[in-house]
Parts: sequence; structure tokens; C-alpha cells
Amino acid sequence: VTTSEVHPRADADARMALIELAHCVEPADAVVGRLVQRAGPLEVVDRIRRGGAGKRLGEGLRARLADSGAPSAEARATAIGARIVTRVDREWPRQLHDLGAAAPFAIWVLGAADLRLTLLRSVAMVGARACTGYGELIARTWSAALAECSWTVVSGGAFGIDAAAHRGALAADGVTACILAGGVDMPYPRAHEALLARIADEGLLVSESPLGIEVRRQRFLSRNRLIAALTRATVVVEAAERSGTMATARAATEMARPLMAVPGPVTSPASAGCHRMIGEGEAALVTSADDIMGLLDLGRSQASTNPAPRANRDALSSAERRLLDAFPARGAATAERLVSSSGLPASAVWAGVGVLASAGWITEDPAGWRLVRDRPPPQPS
Amino acid sequence: VTTSEVHPRADADARMALIELAHCVEPADAVVGRLVQRAGPLEVVDRIRRGGAGKRLGEGLRARLADSGAPSAEARATAIGARIVTRVDREWPRQLHDLGAAAPFAIWVLGAADLRLTLLRSVAMVGARACTGYGELIARTWSAALAECSWTVVSGGAFGIDAAAHRGALAADGVTACILAGGVDMPYPRAHEALLARIADEGLLVSESPLGIEVRRQRFLSRNRLIAALTRATVVVEAAERSGTMATARAATEMARPLMAVPGPVTSPASAGCHRMIGEGEAALVTSADDIMGLLDLGRSQASTNPAPRANRDALSSAERRLLDAFPARGAATAERLVSSSGLPASAVWAGVGVLASAGWITEDPAGWRLVRDRPPPQPS
Repeated sequence: VTTSEVHPRADADARMALIELAHCVEPADAVVGRLVQRAGPLEVVDRIRRGGAGKRLGEGLRARLADSGAPSAEARATAIGARIVTRVDREWPRQLHDLGAAAPFAIWVLGAADLRLTLLRSVAMVGARACTGYGELIARTWSAALAECSWTVVSGGAFGIDAAAHRGALAADGVTACILAGGVDMPYPRAHEALLARIADEGLLVSESPLGIEVRRQRFLSRNRLIAALTRATVVVEAAERSGTMATARAATEMARPLMAVPGPVTSPASAGCHRMIGEGEAALVTSADDIMGLLDLGRSQASTNPAPRANRDALSSAERRLLDAFPARGAATAERLVSSSGLPASAVWAGVGVLASAGWITEDPAGWRLVRDRPPPQPS
Repeated sequence: VTTSEVHPRADADARMALIELAHCVEPADAVVGRLVQRAGPLEVVDRIRRGGAGKRLGEGLRARLADSGAPSAEARATAIGARIVTRVDREWPRQLHDLGAAAPFAIWVLGAADLRLTLLRSVAMVGARACTGYGELIARTWSAALAECSWTVVSGGAFGIDAAAHRGALAADGVTACILAGGVDMPYPRAHEALLARIADEGLLVSESPLGIEVRRQRFLSRNRLIAALTRATVVVEAAERSGTMATARAATEMARPLMAVPGPVTSPASAGCHRMIGEGEAALVTSADDIMGLLDLGRSQASTNPAPRANRDALSSAERRLLDAFPARGAATAERLVSSSGLPASAVWAGVGVLASAGWITEDPAGWRLVRDRPPPQPS
């Protein structure tokens, strides 16, 4: 199955095959993932069902598929107000392609906001469960500042830094997304049941685990890669040297997502991981939410000599890429001109410029919209 | 005058000319400095005295020289237990050559230790006068740890980080050197009179200002360059964004001395300068005295892929350079072999290996001494 195109009415069979794979394959299983890349989800599910595809797709997966209850997954999700978003759905966050063969097949979502659009302008804020008051203060206040500038703050719902990041965004009436290791109907940690319910109400609860799945160690690790993959950059507020946070940080670096870390007192073990990453040049040192946005937001950093990160082109829909290609290389274009140069309907152009602007590709201009460049074009004076 | 050779009995005339220049020329005056590099101190003093060498060497310098009391400087220094070390003296710290035309002509020293040897294995620890309890704790404890490993801790005697650095070294019975902006007989700040007296007793008080000179703004700035020039690396513990500490840091970088900075809470303005330098890659992030020594001490960092800094070859005396060149490229040499390969007397070889080892060029070996290399030579197993 090609996953880079938008399918407004997704192929129902491919969808069901992806949901079935999400039920029987462990997250981040790159062996099955590569097979799906080559043969497509329908063929792979068929092989699993026939049980004749070698050791990897043998009886284990077959039994899990038979027991999975995948056929009723959609109905069960709907019953609790959730939905399943698969690789072939319009709402699929295309930045997950960067995970390659380890990308999820489907994602469970609880919350009203559009998953793809919400995460197009998102930043991960993660850190230690055993954080200090200092770390908690930073996470809460910076998250609020990011949310006030329309950044979606993504974290993992854990005690400590994660919860402070979610709470900061909520306190600023912003959008926050919590990526869970277990099912979106299995709030974890239990002590955060009320917090997670509020996130579902005002933001998004997200998981690649089907409903009813409990957290397990391996699912925390695969969840961490998902946090890094879904966001434009990862900010580590506090982290001890060996921790799950470090796994998120590594995943961000492997996917060439900017990694940032907050310094703290050298006397605080909770900052040791941040100091190591900064010292070894793995993470950029940030001292404020403005620092983060300066590194994230092309609009703010045009004066910089380094081009700021923008959403990957692959994260755009085919219509958005078509619109992007219709922009003039220099100068601005009006919406009318874009309709004519792209051949898209006016409604698609208007929707598209919003997405392209929030993804950092274009910027508003007195004369319409123009491509964002590493250096601003010469200004008429 | 050539300043790169050792003159056990320095030319008395050149010595007096350098002392006279130190009296009438402002510190770091590169114009006069270049003239001295070209024409030599005797010729420049002669031109000043004749008053016929253009605007720069006109009446101002002539009057200052006449009033300076330079002829009695040596006697006055001796009277208070101090001494004057000039560019042609054996005790001159040769790393000051890195200052080029802005190098001092002479230095006043109060304290028993040999100036050159004491500073061969030295590190500057500097920072804000208005420091926090955190910064003071770091300066005191790290300075003590450095002193315990035979590093001379150099600072400027000011309130805050400087005083904590001196006190830490003293508490560990280590050697500390205080570089003053005014004369070594003019303790500044006055509140540190007892501290400075103790440093003179157990370490070194150092200044390029003649006796009796009071501190002035310009002398603080030139003193800061001296701190950076005299040491192998500079550690900034806490510093606000615009501060004298930043001048020391810039001077260290300009002379290619390693610059290190300590992170702290992002909520603390006293750490803002450190964070900027780390974030912009100007300073290495250090979280412990071991980190500092790891970057400084080749012996500790042989496993690292980056060669550690060592004392500049120009900082060695001609006899020490001759001894260094007499080492075999591979393997160790005994003192006897070094006597024969260098042609130096045994006493000079024994003195020299101590200096070369403390300067990071050679290391002790079961078979004698060997050159320190970026990678350790293959070990017999």
C-alpha cells in the first residue's frame, strides 16, 4: 500500500488489514514492518491468517490475530468516543513515515481535534518522573508559553515533567497531546486519570496500542519513539543519565528532529542527562520558551544563518504539496493566482495556505503569501 | 630583545629598560609594544627619554618616565618582600608571549613560589562578584579539588566567585595565584586584605602594575587578559551577560586557551553568560572538577579522541625544549639515556622532566619517561 497519498475514502479493506496488524504485531516490529512495506497490509494479513509464512509470521501472530477482536475494534472505539486512524486515512500524521519500517499501522485517538493538523505544529516536552521543583516550574511555564503561541505540547502523561508540561498547556487554554503506552481507555498512571480525561476533553489522547492493552515495559520504549516522531522537536527538561527520556532523545536525533535540553544546577542529578547531551553537542541548550520557538519557528528565526526546521515535505498531503509547488520562486502570490497556478479549488487553496503556513513553508505577506526562505528576500525600500 | 631564551643572569640594562617601560606605558598598549618588539626596550626607552619619537612617544610618556621612580623600583619591591620579574628573567612565564605586542614588560610578584613553574600547571577560575550561593559552592569545592590534584587556581581576588576560588584552594592547602589590577602593595578590594595577605603567604600575588598604583577601570580589563594568558584554561563559574568576566573569557578564546563554563538554573541571571557561551559553542560545559581536569590533563584524557591541551612549547625554556627533543619517538627513556641524548647535565634533566611532566608533554613509565601521545602506544601484553 502506498501511504504517501491522501485517501479521503480510505480503502476499507486496507484499513481493516492495518487495524488487524496493529492488534497482532508488537509496536516497532521492523521485520513485519518491512514485509508490509513490500507486500502491503492485505497480503501480510492474509499470510498470517494462512499461517504459512515462516517463523516470523507463524502460529504466534496467527493466534494473536484470531484472538484480537480486531473486527469489532472500530465499533468498540466508537462506543467510548474514540476513533482509529490508519496509514491510509486523511488524518494520519505523515511525519510518522520517518519511522520507516517501525512506523505504526494504526493509532487510536480520543479527542475532538484533527490528529494531523494538531501535530503539524507540535513540540515534545519530556523528562524525568523524579523531577525537581525547578524542572516542574520550567516545564509548566514554558509549556504555557508554547501553547500561547499555538504550539501543541506533546508528552507522555507520566509523573513529573510530563504532567507539568500537559498542565502548563492546559492552564494556557492551549492544545496538548498525550501519547500513551497502553490503550487510550487504560489511563496510566492511574493517579493521572483526571488529568488524562481533561486532555481527552481539550486536546488529544493518542496511542498505537489497541483498546484494553495494558502498559508494558516494551510499549513504553516504543511509545517514546512515537513522541519523537510525531513532533517537530523534542525538549528535555530534566533527565537522569539512564532513563526512558534518553530513549526519546535518541529517537529524535535518529530522525534528525532538533533536540533541545535545559541546563540546571550541576549539583542536581536530575539535570545530569541534559548536561551530558549539551556537553556532547547532541542537544541545543535552551534557556527559555523563546529559545525553543526561535529554533522551531522559521518566522522568528529568519535573521539566523541556520535554516530553522520545518515540517517535512512528506508530512504534507498531495494537495498541499501541489499547492506548495504552485508558489512563485520569488515574491508573493494571491489566493486567486494560487488557484490558477495550482489548479486546485479555492477552498483547497484557502485550507492549504493555513496548513503550509503553520508547517513553516510559507508566510503571509502584504501581497498575499510567499515561500519562506533561509534568508528573507531583499525588501523594497 | 629576544624573549624566548632563558637568561640566568639577565642583561641588567634590558631589565631596567623593561621595568621603566612598565612604569610609563599603560598595560596592553600594543603600539608601544610593537615598537619594543622591533627596536628592543633599550632603544625605546632611549627614544622616550629624548622625547623625539613622534606623538606616541612624546611628552606624556617622557614626563611619566621621569616621575616614575623606576630606578628605585627594585629596591622598593625588595623592601616589602616583593620582586620584579621581567621578560628577560628565568622566572618569566613564557605563555605571556601569546599576548603578542600587548604582553607586559615586567610583573611584580609577592610570594615565595616560582612564578613560571607555579603557573605552568594552572587554571583560571573566574566569575561574577554578585554570585549566588550555588556559584560560590561550585567555585570553592572545585577549586579545592583542582588544588588537591596540584593545579594552581588563578583568579582576580574580587568578591564572589574569585574569592571563593582562592579560598577553596587555600582550604585544600593548595597553591593559588591572585592577579591584581593595582600594585601588589595596594590590596583591592580592601575588605579582602586578610585574604590577599594569606595568598601572598601561601601562594602568589601578581600584578603588572608597579607598586603604589591604584586600581582603575582600564587596569581591570588589562588584568583580565593577563589571567587568561597566564593559565592553561579559563573556567567561568557564574557570569551575567555583560561583565568583566566575559572579557576574560574572550581573551582566553582569542589566545586559543580552552574556555569552560558551568551551567546553572535558567532562572538565575548569574548563569546567563555561561549559558550563552555554552549554547553558542564558545565554552565547553563542565559539571565537575573532574570534567575540568579531563579537558586539561592529558594524562587523564588519553582515551579521548581529542588531544587535550598542553602547555605551549613556547612556554618551555630552551633547556626544556632541548630535553623534549631528546626523547625517543616511541618507548621510554631513562634519565641516563636523556643525559646522553640531550647533552644536558643530569641536574638539568631531572629538573626538566618534572617541568615537562607537569606541563603535559611527558609521562612517567615503568621504564623511565616517555612522550605523551594523543593515543597511548600499544601495550605489551
